[in-house]
Amino acid sequence: MSDPSINIFTDVAEIKSPLTLVSGKVIDEYNLKYETYGMLNKEKNNAVLICHALSGNHHAAGCYNNEKKPGWWDNMIGPGKPIDTDKLYVVCVNNLGGCHGSTGPTSQIPNTQKIYGSSFPIITVNDWVNSQKELMDFLKIPSWRFIVGGSLGGMQAFQWTIQYPSLVKNCIVIAAAPKLTAQNIAFNEVARQAIMKDPNWHDGNYIEKGVVPAQGLSLARMLGHITYLSDESMGEKFGRELKQAKLNFNYDVEFQIESYLRYQGEKFVTGFDANTYLLMTKSLDYFDPIKDFGDSLKEIFKSVKSKYLVISFTSDWRFPPKRSREIVKLLLDNEKDVSYSEINSEGGHDAFLMDNEDYFGVMKSFIDEVNNGI
Amino acid sequence: MSDPSINIFTDVAEIKSPLTLVSGKVIDEYNLKYETYGMLNKEKNNAVLICHALSGNHHAAGCYNNEKKPGWWDNMIGPGKPIDTDKLYVVCVNNLGGCHGSTGPTSQIPNTQKIYGSSFPIITVNDWVNSQKELMDFLKIPSWRFIVGGSLGGMQAFQWTIQYPSLVKNCIVIAAAPKLTAQNIAFNEVARQAIMKDPNWHDGNYIEKGVVPAQGLSLARMLGHITYLSDESMGEKFGRELKQAKLNFNYDVEFQIESYLRYQGEKFVTGFDANTYLLMTKSLDYFDPIKDFGDSLKEIFKSVKSKYLVISFTSDWRFPPKRSREIVKLLLDNEKDVSYSEINSEGGHDAFLMDNEDYFGVMKSFIDEVNNGI
Repeated sequence: MSDPSINIFTDVAEIKSPLTLVSGKVIDEYNLKYETYGMLNKEKNNAVLICHALSGNHHAAGCYNNEKKPGWWDNMIGPGKPIDTDKLYVVCVNNLGGCHGSTGPTSQIPNTQKIYGSSFPIITVNDWVNSQKELMDFLKIPSWRFIVGGSLGGMQAFQWTIQYPSLVKNCIVIAAAPKLTAQNIAFNEVARQAIMKDPNWHDGNYIEKGVVPAQGLSLARMLGHITYLSDESMGEKFGRELKQAKLNFNYDVEFQIESYLRYQGEKFVTGFDANTYLLMTKSLDYFDPIKDFGDSLKEIFKSVKSKYLVISFTSDWRFPPKRSREIVKLLLDNEKDVSYSEINSEGGHDAFLMDNEDYFGVMKSFIDEVNNGI
Repeated sequence: MSDPSINIFTDVAEIKSPLTLVSGKVIDEYNLKYETYGMLNKEKNNAVLICHALSGNHHAAGCYNNEKKPGWWDNMIGPGKPIDTDKLYVVCVNNLGGCHGSTGPTSQIPNTQKIYGSSFPIITVNDWVNSQKELMDFLKIPSWRFIVGGSLGGMQAFQWTIQYPSLVKNCIVIAAAPKLTAQNIAFNEVARQAIMKDPNWHDGNYIEKGVVPAQGLSLARMLGHITYLSDESMGEKFGRELKQAKLNFNYDVEFQIESYLRYQGEKFVTGFDANTYLLMTKSLDYFDPIKDFGDSLKEIFKSVKSKYLVISFTSDWRFPPKRSREIVKLLLDNEKDVSYSEINSEGGHDAFLMDNEDYFGVMKSFIDEVNNGI
């Protein structure tokens, strides 16, 4: 791997201890593809975990050899950046059930010649945290200086603090929600139906058939994109600009936004697995720690050591600021130390991936403070 | 037809004069299925036109023989209702290109054995107004007391006033916009792609093949439904209620909202045509009278006689209040007489079809005033 400044290290952790899932199913063994940036210090107190969102993966920062495109959060992670790899040992893992090197629906079932396909079990955020805890042990990391994530990644970060209260010193939850609304679930359901009604779906065992439900996955991605962008940002980027100089009066691409969406859909299917997409949307739907932990949550929170930073973006209509404020209220009700920042942005839900002076300022200031003593 | 109180009359107008479309294509002859309620008075000054939205049709009010379900706007139209059929002669027409009796993609091409299918031309709001003008002449109606519509229907009502300024005395534009945003177009495009990627699509000539692109149309409708409802109303109606007592951890229906959406999708495909759906979404995309009329709009407005009532709903995120205010601003800038009402409602875009005391009060008070002299 290149990019010595950020010191990328990519590897696979082979986890041999069985993982019992919330569903009751058990995965006997599994691989976790992970990446690290920076170095674990002698005191082992500078490790941070990055949790990725629906379509993310372990490659969060830096560039690989001969590649120009850096990882998905390269603006945030690196020397001198808010998540400063000169000071921190940054870990990012492709989630279990993913399709970028960790065990998932496209993997071979151990000791067989078969691909998991639809037999791969549904993984919840709770399960991900447990699998990430295995990676933590594998890497001999005693505690996380902080865990951070946006969207579904923010849900994992939050869940870590209540599932392993003593292991997380600080937690940054960005553009997330304490649970999905009916509307959120509805969008996920349409995406799933698009995939599962593709003639190449074959009940999820399309790899065996040598095909891919590309049209369904592409539709799901197109729909996803609408919910990631704000009406304002779409308007600014595309408006009602025509692809050609005049209207065609047919069903070919007419407006630039159509061209953009079709391109996004087509690009996505070359690098993502449909079963993983389904699984990720289900993890989102199921996420509801307040219900899961019920009455015991109050007791759990007493042992939570973590300080929290919660960030939302004004134009995010997938998980709007009011959803982040629900998280803040829950934390305050349980007397936790929480900072909250509502960032002015036209970027929509995807704003958590974009450059924004206020956002980066808030991140840097919180992280610099929690880095104290490294 | 039954329901004597509302005096339903349903018929087909056979229009023999060719219609030149905005696209340049010509439809030589066509049928318009229409329905009327109440009676045209001697002075012929009590006629009103109801314009329907994307999935609407000519059957706006009253019940047919042996049917329990009334027309789609029965709460608004009838004796003693805001659109009072004791006083008014109410006309509603299935739009050209529709699939409920007017000539459209499912119709036979005159003098052939062939179904139009995808050869049916794209119809714009401008074209609809011209075809409705033909119906007006057919019915020997000299002018409209008012024209009213919600959503795409509101766009037609608005367009009437600038296309035939002397024929429309009053105009009610509900839950509409002066043009679609990139986000609006994006949702339409995903719906279209869902239909056009269905294996039963056959380039739009599925009737010839004896099949229907039911899965694609059902997906389009599911997606549509999300945009018709507000996050609040979905939350109130479904929340995170489970279909069964506990989570299944599979891809069957889990939450009530999923069940609702699948049902809506499946129900829709039994009564609607996919080509009509495409055509309607394109009419929406293309609607942009400010651009279409350009510099001449100021001059046209000088001859516009119509008073306007513009209504929006607070929770409508498809065409939110700010879009209605754009229409109001355009009218005020051109010194037109306009009333504007922003109705508090959690009903989302579909609020225009729902009972709401404030909404009905505003409608009744405006209509009672414009009925003066009947």
